[in-house]
Amino acid sequence: MTLESEVRSYCRTFDVEFSTGRGGTMTTTDGRHYRDFLACCGSLNYGHNHPVLKQALTSHIADDGLAMSLDLKSDRKRDFLTAFETHILKPRRLDYVVQLPGPTGANAIEAAIKLARKVTGRNEVIAFTNGFHGCTLGALALTGSGHHRGQSGTLLSGVTRAPYDGYYGPDICTAEMLDKMLSDPSGGLEAPAAIVLEAIQGEGGLNMATPRWTRRIAEIARKHGALLIVDDIQAGCGRSGDFFSFEALRITPDIVTLAKSLSGFGLPMSMVLFRREFDLWLPGEHNGTFRGNSHAFVTATAALDHFWADLGFAKTVKENALFIAGRLKRLAETHGLSTRGRGFMQGLRFDDPVAARRVQLACFKAGLILETCGPHDEVIKLLPALTLTRDELAEGIDILADALATTLSKTEEPA
Amino acid sequence: MTLESEVRSYCRTFDVEFSTGRGGTMTTTDGRHYRDFLACCGSLNYGHNHPVLKQALTSHIADDGLAMSLDLKSDRKRDFLTAFETHILKPRRLDYVVQLPGPTGANAIEAAIKLARKVTGRNEVIAFTNGFHGCTLGALALTGSGHHRGQSGTLLSGVTRAPYDGYYGPDICTAEMLDKMLSDPSGGLEAPAAIVLEAIQGEGGLNMATPRWTRRIAEIARKHGALLIVDDIQAGCGRSGDFFSFEALRITPDIVTLAKSLSGFGLPMSMVLFRREFDLWLPGEHNGTFRGNSHAFVTATAALDHFWADLGFAKTVKENALFIAGRLKRLAETHGLSTRGRGFMQGLRFDDPVAARRVQLACFKAGLILETCGPHDEVIKLLPALTLTRDELAEGIDILADALATTLSKTEEPA
Amino acid sequence: MTLESEVRSYCRTFDVEFSTGRGGTMTTTDGRHYRDFLACCGSLNYGHNHPVLKQALTSHIADDGLAMSLDLKSDRKRDFLTAFETHILKPRRLDYVVQLPGPTGANAIEAAIKLARKVTGRNEVIAFTNGFHGCTLGALALTGSGHHRGQSGTLLSGVTRAPYDGYYGPDICTAEMLDKMLSDPSGGLEAPAAIVLEAIQGEGGLNMATPRWTRRIAEIARKHGALLIVDDIQAGCGRSGDFFSFEALRITPDIVTLAKSLSGFGLPMSMVLFRREFDLWLPGEHNGTFRGNSHAFVTATAALDHFWADLGFAKTVKENALFIAGRLKRLAETHGLSTRGRGFMQGLRFDDPVAARRVQLACFKAGLILETCGPHDEVIKLLPALTLTRDELAEGIDILADALATTLSKTEEPA
Amino acid sequence: MTLESEVRSYCRTFDVEFSTGRGGTMTTTDGRHYRDFLACCGSLNYGHNHPVLKQALTSHIADDGLAMSLDLKSDRKRDFLTAFETHILKPRRLDYVVQLPGPTGANAIEAAIKLARKVTGRNEVIAFTNGFHGCTLGALALTGSGHHRGQSGTLLSGVTRAPYDGYYGPDICTAEMLDKMLSDPSGGLEAPAAIVLEAIQGEGGLNMATPRWTRRIAEIARKHGALLIVDDIQAGCGRSGDFFSFEALRITPDIVTLAKSLSGFGLPMSMVLFRREFDLWLPGEHNGTFRGNSHAFVTATAALDHFWADLGFAKTVKENALFIAGRLKRLAETHGLSTRGRGFMQGLRFDDPVAARRVQLACFKAGLILETCGPHDEVIKLLPALTLTRDELAEGIDILADALATTLSKTEEPA
Repeated sequence: MTLESEVRSYCRTFDVEFSTGRGGTMTTTDGRHYRDFLACCGSLNYGHNHPVLKQALTSHIADDGLAMSLDLKSDRKRDFLTAFETHILKPRRLDYVVQLPGPTGANAIEAAIKLARKVTGRNEVIAFTNGFHGCTLGALALTGSGHHRGQSGTLLSGVTRAPYDGYYGPDICTAEMLDKMLSDPSGGLEAPAAIVLEAIQGEGGLNMATPRWTRRIAEIARKHGALLIVDDIQAGCGRSGDFFSFEALRITPDIVTLAKSLSGFGLPMSMVLFRREFDLWLPGEHNGTFRGNSHAFVTATAALDHFWADLGFAKTVKENALFIAGRLKRLAETHGLSTRGRGFMQGLRFDDPVAARRVQLACFKAGLILETCGPHDEVIKLLPALTLTRDELAEGIDILADALATTLSKTEEPA
Repeated sequence: MTLESEVRSYCRTFDVEFSTGRGGTMTTTDGRHYRDFLACCGSLNYGHNHPVLKQALTSHIADDGLAMSLDLKSDRKRDFLTAFETHILKPRRLDYVVQLPGPTGANAIEAAIKLARKVTGRNEVIAFTNGFHGCTLGALALTGSGHHRGQSGTLLSGVTRAPYDGYYGPDICTAEMLDKMLSDPSGGLEAPAAIVLEAIQGEGGLNMATPRWTRRIAEIARKHGALLIVDDIQAGCGRSGDFFSFEALRITPDIVTLAKSLSGFGLPMSMVLFRREFDLWLPGEHNGTFRGNSHAFVTATAALDHFWADLGFAKTVKENALFIAGRLKRLAETHGLSTRGRGFMQGLRFDDPVAARRVQLACFKAGLILETCGPHDEVIKLLPALTLTRDELAEGIDILADALATTLSKTEEPA
Repeated sequence: MTLESEVRSYCRTFDVEFSTGRGGTMTTTDGRHYRDFLACCGSLNYGHNHPVLKQALTSHIADDGLAMSLDLKSDRKRDFLTAFETHILKPRRLDYVVQLPGPTGANAIEAAIKLARKVTGRNEVIAFTNGFHGCTLGALALTGSGHHRGQSGTLLSGVTRAPYDGYYGPDICTAEMLDKMLSDPSGGLEAPAAIVLEAIQGEGGLNMATPRWTRRIAEIARKHGALLIVDDIQAGCGRSGDFFSFEALRITPDIVTLAKSLSGFGLPMSMVLFRREFDLWLPGEHNGTFRGNSHAFVTATAALDHFWADLGFAKTVKENALFIAGRLKRLAETHGLSTRGRGFMQGLRFDDPVAARRVQLACFKAGLILETCGPHDEVIKLLPALTLTRDELAEGIDILADALATTLSKTEEPA
Repeated sequence: MTLESEVRSYCRTFDVEFSTGRGGTMTTTDGRHYRDFLACCGSLNYGHNHPVLKQALTSHIADDGLAMSLDLKSDRKRDFLTAFETHILKPRRLDYVVQLPGPTGANAIEAAIKLARKVTGRNEVIAFTNGFHGCTLGALALTGSGHHRGQSGTLLSGVTRAPYDGYYGPDICTAEMLDKMLSDPSGGLEAPAAIVLEAIQGEGGLNMATPRWTRRIAEIARKHGALLIVDDIQAGCGRSGDFFSFEALRITPDIVTLAKSLSGFGLPMSMVLFRREFDLWLPGEHNGTFRGNSHAFVTATAALDHFWADLGFAKTVKENALFIAGRLKRLAETHGLSTRGRGFMQGLRFDDPVAARRVQLACFKAGLILETCGPHDEVIKLLPALTLTRDELAEGIDILADALATTLSKTEEPA
């Protein structure tokens, strides 16, 4: 009988004991190697123990650099803010203020909606079908997943659910539908404090918002006095091909949340960005003990300096994303599946969730770790590190191709 | 103009840039040293960069040990769970299951109340005046502080506020008051899912619950079908003198939350403990990307092995706590103040919050960092590392004594 | 300065003092007569002071019959229940239990949703755009009107808003849209306790649900374990042509609310009907002092006996409704308007709410009382008593026709 | 099997069929007479079918006077407002505006708290243990009774429960306790929109607020920016001895709710009174179809003119209340009970609810109708019409005395 609660999840699918990691490979205690196309749910965009980041962290620790520092000033925080401003905000002409609310994505979302409510004096937040934003009470109310929302006890209020882009098929613009209800004096929706969206729904099935829809949503937010929040926790930090997932959509959100790969090393760190005019926080009004994770500042700074000082990295990521897309397209055609996502968060959608599950398990048996997503776990999701070479990507996808070939030909057999 | 939001708080009082830390000392970028009686709000119970923990972490990183691992099995998580069971749970005969819900205290609280609501099928949670439990929506509803609860927009529901032990003076038992209202069929309180309390209210002014009151609250929880949750985020991990703050109160909570000093090194980590019979979680029902912080597992294991394998450390902490108490008692008598708290979370309460603020600033000027707490920030709070020697403690308290002497004699002057 | 609050509404449009009423005519204190096409918002389906009902009430009072009786047994309540069962329930094969929850429609709605929540153990209720269900807190949460929902202070939760039949035009089935979101495990809607709808939205603009859509909604309710509630407060008691508005739609709701014309005389009375299997009420669990309005029982019984003992009355109402429809169709064609509604709740929709308002005022000047409805008050609504002769109807509509001709020809002029 | 729902309540205790009423007597269909000390829960302060009121109503109906009139102007409403201003408001120097929100007490409460929330922009309302304010969602949240609040589904939020005067015994001032929590910046209570209280808790066990406590509550409301609402639905309209129950307490509430005996004849009518400065309603913002009950206006006017034009009636009521108090005091002494209440709402409290129930049933058997109240139904409550002569009162109390003597002597026997 384990000491840990039944709440454990990934260890049920990948039932081995891991010990070390390097780049795109994880190794178990007993020496088996696995290709990692999960990257800790997109938290390791630069792979495990990237040597540049590792060196920076090791050096910081050796020097007795602070491990944590609340919201005190520190040299490492200063370095990070400078790097973020220099490499990310300025080149994109984004005039955002930075809040470090605590080290988890959920905390960033909680801070974002709290701020939007404070700024607007309104309560209701609009969130979308199949969105995922975290498990703390405020974030959970935004999250669509019934599995996480649960069946009893907890009460989730203050959120209006709207259909995401394409939810009712390509011919129906769900943004127009939302605008009609919000504009109707008897439409029965409260004037919203915010509209929260993911540009690519990482947990919800790799659904993508189109530029047109997203810009329409941005207009609707402005028209109705709501702030537009882009949750870039999974799709940000380069995973979409750009640093922010919304760059390709040509919108500038009022608030942005980042976490997961922000530290670049898997260390807990999150951030909220918002237009300076909305910085109505009182000192200490939203806080959290671990909001000054100095180890994470160190690796985040190293990652920004190393990968984002020029356009080369993003260019390579986009090229490799096209390679992934091409391979997945052919696999989809071969097996009657459809493709999902963009950048380094792409996948294959199965009509039958059981088939997706079989493919996932066959991959694991063959040494490839990847997860499923979507409302029925019917989408195989590829989240490899952005730093993988084309050969490494190809080797992983080859395993997937084999698993598809073997598994799908077997699905006729009795279970 | 800073890039960071106005939400920054500690850096306003301690307006210097910190760089390194070792034991009970923090050093600024320009080489000034400060005695640290704040310990990152009680997150550094073993001081900054404790060599044993540092060595373990450095070695782990050098070996390409995982930085994070979701809720996968890993050697480092196994080591941690074994150490926690061996050194903490077994000797105290606590049959708890462990949940790692994400690395912040707020997340632990969110998981705890979600579980209590799930177990009981009830919504309402009873929390106390001056309690502090975090800033995410569910935790914030439990938190008493009006500054954090805010004035607009956000809606906090599902919590019934009850007066803490001694809130109405020593002659009124607030536990009996609560029982009367809960027992009254027309009392108008909902049957509660949980009662949440801190044994020592760290933010609320170092108010202490007596064993008698706490045991009565435990009875009341049982009588009314509610789970008893002890939030040991600040008072736990040895700060009270015992590993858990409730050991001295002779109760066994149904659920316990830990965070802050759990990793021992300042790395984000939190934990929820609960009786095995309440482990009704479905796999993945409450999760968080950073719930498997392997760096934190490594330092936490080292801390447990080093400090908690026998009773010696706790004994020293208790002896030194008595020393602190003695010094504070004399200071209180000299200056007409009162003492608060126990263990390594003690303080001095001022009638005038302005005086407390002046003393805090005078200490900082003299090289001592400590914070204020209480509803009016009227309590000077000492949260030194538990590892400080008696001399180190004495040197800090000497600075405080000087600040008191100087400051309070000046309070007669015109402001 | 009036003693009454600014909350007064109708008296601003119809700024005369009324004294008496008879059939379809209201007379002011100073002797002016008005044709009444408002019927107290549909509460006087048999006109003012109908002689049969008046005689029954006068006789009851003369005999010292009880005026009120809580939920005690009384001869008059027995008479009413017998008549309702005999003339209404049995001929329609409806096996409903009757609850008398208090004398207002809002109270009936409150009881209905409370019961649905009790039966299902769920919280969320689905209500529709432009629906109107009352102003008490539970009913208001269901109501779409922003004017009534208000801007501040009050919190309206527990309701999911869905688009009504035809809300997005004739080509989009909003019932299918609702089913998709409810069926999606990550759709983010809570499993509903009930779906509440009006077959004809009296306040919302005389929007009508089609039989096909309504039957689909009934299926969706069943599929997802929700109760179907038809709010028949305005459209019931014959106004649609049948006693219940849902008869023409071929559905049998789980719960039905009635009020307004139930007493037939304008006396406050409401009723909730529900399938016997859902009668989970405990004695006295939902009550209200005025739930036994004996005067209303007396007139309601007389109305049922007089109008609903055979099919003749309903037949006449339907024939006259066709007459109204024909007249309105021609007026709409002449003036480029569109028609709305069915039965004795029909109207004309204007593109310009100002024009609708002008027509209403011109009618009043010419001795005809009627109101506007719809999200922008852009629909002129005819709610005459069902007892009006065709000549009386024609005379009212003639006034409307004149007002249209005069007003709309004037709208070219500068305002 | 009855057509009516199991929600029926009074008819279970008083299981006979009533037909007529006159003064303090109700008569069944088969001719049995009962003395009525229930007065339809205090809705018949002038008894059944009082001849003066009956004559006014009969005459109004004979003349085809309007039965209902929404919020239109009418001669009968004007008469009522004039009488209310002349006989009630002016002599008491109360500068209130009148709102007619719909005919039930619950509706008046809903309007009152909605207005308080609108005026203050705050959500939370403070209500007291054992308070009863109605069963619609907003009113129910204020109500203490667990039986009415129910166990599942319905969610009651926005209310903070505070202990009523004397709840913790005579030595603890619960008003001071409330003030302490509200004044504490970390007390954890939201700034309240309103404090709602009954001067005498009719359903809660005839608990009485003292003048001192009530004035302290009024100060606390003012200090914290909350409106003071007195719910005078049961205790108002003369039942306390004065027209308003709060007259004896020397406070002037910001908002007052009236219903039950307002029409004087048992016809549904309610009213909200508030200081003119708080009349922030927009036209029609809170409404209800039956808010213009003209029959009720007629009887209410007659009642005001007949009973309240001078001080004689109130004087007699107070004298007779002393008579009732004297009789109850002796009965209490004889049987080891305690007395409760004042005016014409007094009672006897039993330690054993079963004994109270037996006495109630014995009274009914002997021809006296009265009810029990209190959290355990442990208080026998006398609510006779205010118009009863001393002989009639004596006869009823004699029956009670016999029932006590017989029943309590039997309680020793095995159940």
